[in-house]
Amino acid sequence: LRVIVLGSAAGGGVPQWNCRCRICALAWDKDARVKRRTQSSLAVTINGEEFVLINASPDLREQIAGHAVLQPRSGLRGSPVRACVVTNADVDHIAGLLTLRERQNFDLYATQATLSALQANPIFDVLAPECVARKPVRLDEAFEPLPGLVLTPFAAPGKVALWQERENLEIGVEGETTVALELRCGSKRILYVPACAAATTSLREKIAGADVLLFDGTTFTDDELIAAGLMQKSARRMGHLPMSGRDGSAASLAGLDVGRKIFIHINNSNPVLIEDSPERRWTEQAGWEIAYDGMEIVL
Amino acid sequence: LRVIVLGSAAGGGVPQWNCRCRICALAWDKDARVKRRTQSSLAVTINGEEFVLINASPDLREQIAGHAVLQPRSGLRGSPVRACVVTNADVDHIAGLLTLRERQNFDLYATQATLSALQANPIFDVLAPECVARKPVRLDEAFEPLPGLVLTPFAAPGKVALWQERENLEIGVEGETTVALELRCGSKRILYVPACAAATTSLREKIAGADVLLFDGTTFTDDELIAAGLMQKSARRMGHLPMSGRDGSAASLAGLDVGRKIFIHINNSNPVLIEDSPERRWTEQAGWEIAYDGMEIVL
Repeated sequence: LRVIVLGSAAGGGVPQWNCRCRICALAWDKDARVKRRTQSSLAVTINGEEFVLINASPDLREQIAGHAVLQPRSGLRGSPVRACVVTNADVDHIAGLLTLRERQNFDLYATQATLSALQANPIFDVLAPECVARKPVRLDEAFEPLPGLVLTPFAAPGKVALWQERENLEIGVEGETTVALELRCGSKRILYVPACAAATTSLREKIAGADVLLFDGTTFTDDELIAAGLMQKSARRMGHLPMSGRDGSAASLAGLDVGRKIFIHINNSNPVLIEDSPERRWTEQAGWEIAYDGMEIVL
Repeated sequence: LRVIVLGSAAGGGVPQWNCRCRICALAWDKDARVKRRTQSSLAVTINGEEFVLINASPDLREQIAGHAVLQPRSGLRGSPVRACVVTNADVDHIAGLLTLRERQNFDLYATQATLSALQANPIFDVLAPECVARKPVRLDEAFEPLPGLVLTPFAAPGKVALWQERENLEIGVEGETTVALELRCGSKRILYVPACAAATTSLREKIAGADVLLFDGTTFTDDELIAAGLMQKSARRMGHLPMSGRDGSAASLAGLDVGRKIFIHINNSNPVLIEDSPERRWTEQAGWEIAYDGMEIVL
């Protein structure tokens, strides 16, 4: 079971096109302390020949260009990508589907809620139905997009995508709009939770015993975007649990028996992206790694 | 008047994610004869400080990362991009609008037909109306997205975007679905025609006398995608006039008084992309240049 982190950043990436917060400024200025990061996507393989993409980021074309294993190997047209699984309808998780046009066969897995969000946007019809089979998945029901790779979606507390927000927005709901994934191969188990608004008891139970946890690392503190003057929204308002604080993710998930804990889907505002920052040290001392583009996890 | 070619390729770019035609194979293998190219987009400026994007390609985040002049310079949030003009609703011309999210103010200009195509896809609501003003433009009516830069859209024979195709598809219609642009600054005049199904008399009259022509260079021959075994569609079926042949663009536009003639929006199947190919030599001998990413035109 091999997982390649294609993109470790949240929406916008690092640096974000219109941002000069202190972290983006370092990234634009090519300071060695801040790695550039593309948007949220994983590639998963068992045999090294066939891959499943988990989320399709707007940066997918660049991500494929950077990873020879994802490029076509023989014949005129082809791809090692056999399937794509989408965990919600955020732009950073679905826009890359537009890159996967050009009449290539693959399976597209998502909950009915996310498939309906795609269907509400006819631009995704560039994925012709005779090439791309849209396969609904259900919460807590396993499916096998590659032989030997068993995925099980489960509800993560969250909200609908930004572009779907309406006045009566509910945050922290558990349902089909935001899902996490359990990846199993034999006895190995990885949990991928890129967006999560609360560390519920059921989530903690699910996580316990995993070999690897990839968890929502959007922000370090709940108010960091507000404090930096970037936006008037807290992390929780955006559907993300911050890393730090008494009820943040590091504290809430401490003490669980997990092989490796890795923060992923990291927003450009998050000071852990500065490699010598106190927040980075705090996070590492709390037992967490910080994902980066090109990181590989092999079990 | 300065034009930067951000992306010189047609949809899919070079190499295309799932293609190993002989040109993509050379590009994947990093052969020096084939430059890698991103998808169709221009940046235009008068003063070097403020820019208009013409078309927003799926590769826009990578394109901004490659051009310091398009990056934010001061303050917390900002961008030298003041406006974006979209010439049709093809994925390669609109998907990059999703990169321009994050509450940045700019003006979005397109015909009502193209604005309606965007409106039919709620995902583009990430461009909040209080930040991004959608401004309809009319055929043959000038507008000024930057002080001193006068743009006039005019109809180019074409068709609707692939994802909008229905059974009764008309090719070569002239209307609002596919437009070309005249760029004027003082007495300087550039014509940008990234998609064009026929070199009509009115188009030839428009082109005559231009300082620079940037013209649809999708394919070299009408049947090249079919002959290469890549697709069952001719160039004309896709709404593009091929470069070569008795009624191709090179022959049809020969003899017009134009300062520089440049092919742009070049598909990965087009052999002119191989720098020592006979087709490349033929095209250059016919008086045409081949656009590449990072090419600059200064008048």
